[in-house]
Amino acid sequence: MQGIFQQLTPYLEKAMALTTALTLIEWDMETTAPEEAADATSSIIGLLSDEYFKTIMNDEVKQLLHKIVETEEYKQLTEVEQAIVTQLQKQYDEFEPVPQSEYKAYSELTAKSSGIWAKAKENNDFNEFAETLKEIIYYRKKFATYRQKKGQPLYEVLLHDFEPSFTMEQIDSFFALIKKELVPLIRQITSKNVVIDRSFNHRSYDIDLQREFCIWLSGYVGFDFERGVISEAEHPFTTNLHNRDVRYTNHYEENNLFNAIFSAIHETGHCIYEMNIDDEITQTIVGSGTSMAMHESQSRFYENMIGKSKEFWEGIYEKLQQQFKPVLNDITLEQFYLAINQSEPSLIRTEADELTYPLHILIRYEIEKKIITEDIDVYELPTIWNDLYEEYLGIRPQTDAEGILQDVHWSMGEFGYFPSYALGSAIASQLYHFMKQTIPFEQCLKTGEFEEMEQMLKEHIHKYGMVRNTNRMLKDMTGETFNASYYIEYLKEKYRKIYDL
Amino acid sequence: MQGIFQQLTPYLEKAMALTTALTLIEWDMETTAPEEAADATSSIIGLLSDEYFKTIMNDEVKQLLHKIVETEEYKQLTEVEQAIVTQLQKQYDEFEPVPQSEYKAYSELTAKSSGIWAKAKENNDFNEFAETLKEIIYYRKKFATYRQKKGQPLYEVLLHDFEPSFTMEQIDSFFALIKKELVPLIRQITSKNVVIDRSFNHRSYDIDLQREFCIWLSGYVGFDFERGVISEAEHPFTTNLHNRDVRYTNHYEENNLFNAIFSAIHETGHCIYEMNIDDEITQTIVGSGTSMAMHESQSRFYENMIGKSKEFWEGIYEKLQQQFKPVLNDITLEQFYLAINQSEPSLIRTEADELTYPLHILIRYEIEKKIITEDIDVYELPTIWNDLYEEYLGIRPQTDAEGILQDVHWSMGEFGYFPSYALGSAIASQLYHFMKQTIPFEQCLKTGEFEEMEQMLKEHIHKYGMVRNTNRMLKDMTGETFNASYYIEYLKEKYRKIYDL
Repeated sequence: MQGIFQQLTPYLEKAMALTTALTLIEWDMETTAPEEAADATSSIIGLLSDEYFKTIMNDEVKQLLHKIVETEEYKQLTEVEQAIVTQLQKQYDEFEPVPQSEYKAYSELTAKSSGIWAKAKENNDFNEFAETLKEIIYYRKKFATYRQKKGQPLYEVLLHDFEPSFTMEQIDSFFALIKKELVPLIRQITSKNVVIDRSFNHRSYDIDLQREFCIWLSGYVGFDFERGVISEAEHPFTTNLHNRDVRYTNHYEENNLFNAIFSAIHETGHCIYEMNIDDEITQTIVGSGTSMAMHESQSRFYENMIGKSKEFWEGIYEKLQQQFKPVLNDITLEQFYLAINQSEPSLIRTEADELTYPLHILIRYEIEKKIITEDIDVYELPTIWNDLYEEYLGIRPQTDAEGILQDVHWSMGEFGYFPSYALGSAIASQLYHFMKQTIPFEQCLKTGEFEEMEQMLKEHIHKYGMVRNTNRMLKDMTGETFNASYYIEYLKEKYRKIYDL
Repeated sequence: MQGIFQQLTPYLEKAMALTTALTLIEWDMETTAPEEAADATSSIIGLLSDEYFKTIMNDEVKQLLHKIVETEEYKQLTEVEQAIVTQLQKQYDEFEPVPQSEYKAYSELTAKSSGIWAKAKENNDFNEFAETLKEIIYYRKKFATYRQKKGQPLYEVLLHDFEPSFTMEQIDSFFALIKKELVPLIRQITSKNVVIDRSFNHRSYDIDLQREFCIWLSGYVGFDFERGVISEAEHPFTTNLHNRDVRYTNHYEENNLFNAIFSAIHETGHCIYEMNIDDEITQTIVGSGTSMAMHESQSRFYENMIGKSKEFWEGIYEKLQQQFKPVLNDITLEQFYLAINQSEPSLIRTEADELTYPLHILIRYEIEKKIITEDIDVYELPTIWNDLYEEYLGIRPQTDAEGILQDVHWSMGEFGYFPSYALGSAIASQLYHFMKQTIPFEQCLKTGEFEEMEQMLKEHIHKYGMVRNTNRMLKDMTGETFNASYYIEYLKEKYRKIYDL
């Protein structure tokens, strides 16, 4: 007799095929499609997304799920099958309680909201976006209420969409630690007035040479070109069809070398994660990175622990100089290392250095909590934003575009997402701490031998996809669940050395 | 009350979305996807294709179709709606009579047959492919029988898949004319022993410069970059998602300039056709070129009537010389013109010149007729093939790879397809004849003003997609249905001049 789980297979397979098609269409729109294609192709995306929902959310699947969860069947499933059921159940929990009329109104809203945000940002005027944001907040809160468990903070419902294995209490303590430890450190650095020259980053670097170097660099740290593709788009991003088709984009600017180099290493970290997902799960709904933070931890690990270390550049700085000869002839390795790690409070999150970055996230975290748990007036947000920047980073945005309007996330209804960025860096630090005790880490950086690191990440994290959660994998690998102190320790040690504190 | 036709809309829309996704996935596999992606992505293609068939071929759609065709409803439909019904009905006529077990066996066969053919070609051994070909022939004939009308030649059933508006009798007379008129002309040229030097085509032409020139050239003849994309693949081909997303690939080799240039113009002809499909029909099942021959007529018109004319190069030959300076400095416009039009019997169809090309098709036509209407032993095919080459072109293939194994078509079950290539050239000649009488054609070639030609093609042919058939559009545009004499006239006039006969 066929098990109940097996009866889900045709639905899951069809859903997976549709997801893959949608992923490819979106990749193509960002990298290849001609300008005028957008409208007609969007209608295709709409039709395929509808079909995806119908495939997963219907009475047959619902009944099968119910049978599996409510009977002995669940216990007899393999770990992978259980994870698939959990993941499917999560989609039901998220969408089922929302009345269709509300979901429709919300979809119509978010179909245009990013456009309104982009226009407002262009015009540097938050007021143009305020009413739209108010509506988005209204729906996000309302939808979260449907799923809220008794006694659960409403914001935690949203956090769990991205980090299901963290409680809000844990995240609160995480950001409290960041505030307590990093705000003073940053002040200390700022007040010391050390000048690190990074102006050479804005010299002229031929774009073809940048492309060539960055593609080489990706391969150097472990990008597998038989399973992956590197292309170009307005912004760097990673996407994957399955573990043998993983792609990232970069963006090259003549007068900014660091952007392209560190995007290349960062996105390669994301790609390596997806390339190492196990064959057994790659074409299932659990065949992708386990959480936003875990994904970001991999990209940050490659970007920062590997790519911004001195040892890494000891091995390849000459190659870099050679590539752009003679542009970097007068810059020593030491100068280069300091420049890529210079820390300075700035207004734009995506351009922030490793040390000030988590403060940008702290600010968003505090504001999101206010938005979700208090009935805050959206028109007050710009001032709250600016005040927090002044308080934590000592600088004050002068315009909405460089302040409250800088990120796209809220316009897409993504509340609860930002914390993952900081959690990712913290997880990366914990992995780093563990690896340094396990393998000759610095030696590997110098010689470019990254296989052992990757193998550890693959065996403990990558291959499981979403079958195991972040904390479980951290525990299995490092012996303890998430511990933010390694992050603080890492940043303190690194930046005290750089700024001679 | 909603008409019956409108009830088809959700099925048609979903089918269209799936087709678009499949088209994009296939484009991506040829241009972008990493090497190891093929297997997993093929499983996606399989799932989406299945879903496409289920969407179009099911009891609800069948009943709706039946109601429309059998009632007064059909007459009340618009021309576009009628075309959609006809097109849908055609799919039913093709697939419905085939027993599922046979269709499955055939699908399994063709899933591997191209691979077997490729291997046989690589090993230069027809015997490796013979049994597979035999099976393919068995099924193609069997399936055709299911659709054969009383008294209809079996081969015509297959021809109609590609050219529904031609009878086999017409195509027979067409090839009879080619044989009668062109075989002696080619012999006359061959025996004259005129030497045209085209060796300069194999000098070294920088690939980046070729790419730049070919992209420019596409735009020069009318490629709209806001609606289209040019990429690279192993072989040149055109594909389209809709009229605002039309794409072609080219292939650049350092030692072959002509290949890239004429592929660029040829594929641009295909693209312009698809870009000009009417907005009303672009995202429907009749929103593409009306037949293989008509499509090929457009690409050949651009490639030959425009791109291989002397006037065209009068306008831009200096630019070409400039682009590859100094490689073409010693080649005059006249030498260049003669070289791109040199005619010489050769073994490989895809490399044949304009004059000998239709003989390659004639040979395949005669063989296909034998295959489909006679119980020919496949093991006799190589000899039949070689004998015909000797008879019509005066040269004999020495190996299977340069003979019977050169084309992929049969390995994909495509019988009845080849004639379209020759019909396409003939239609292009008929359009050319008409245009020369209507607009200052040669002047336009010299000055690069192709808008008027394109406008004529758009208004009479392109915009209708599959709503009107080839012969109807030819009649409406030129005042007569297909007439092969213009093709003969065109080739005779052109080649008599070139070879001074």
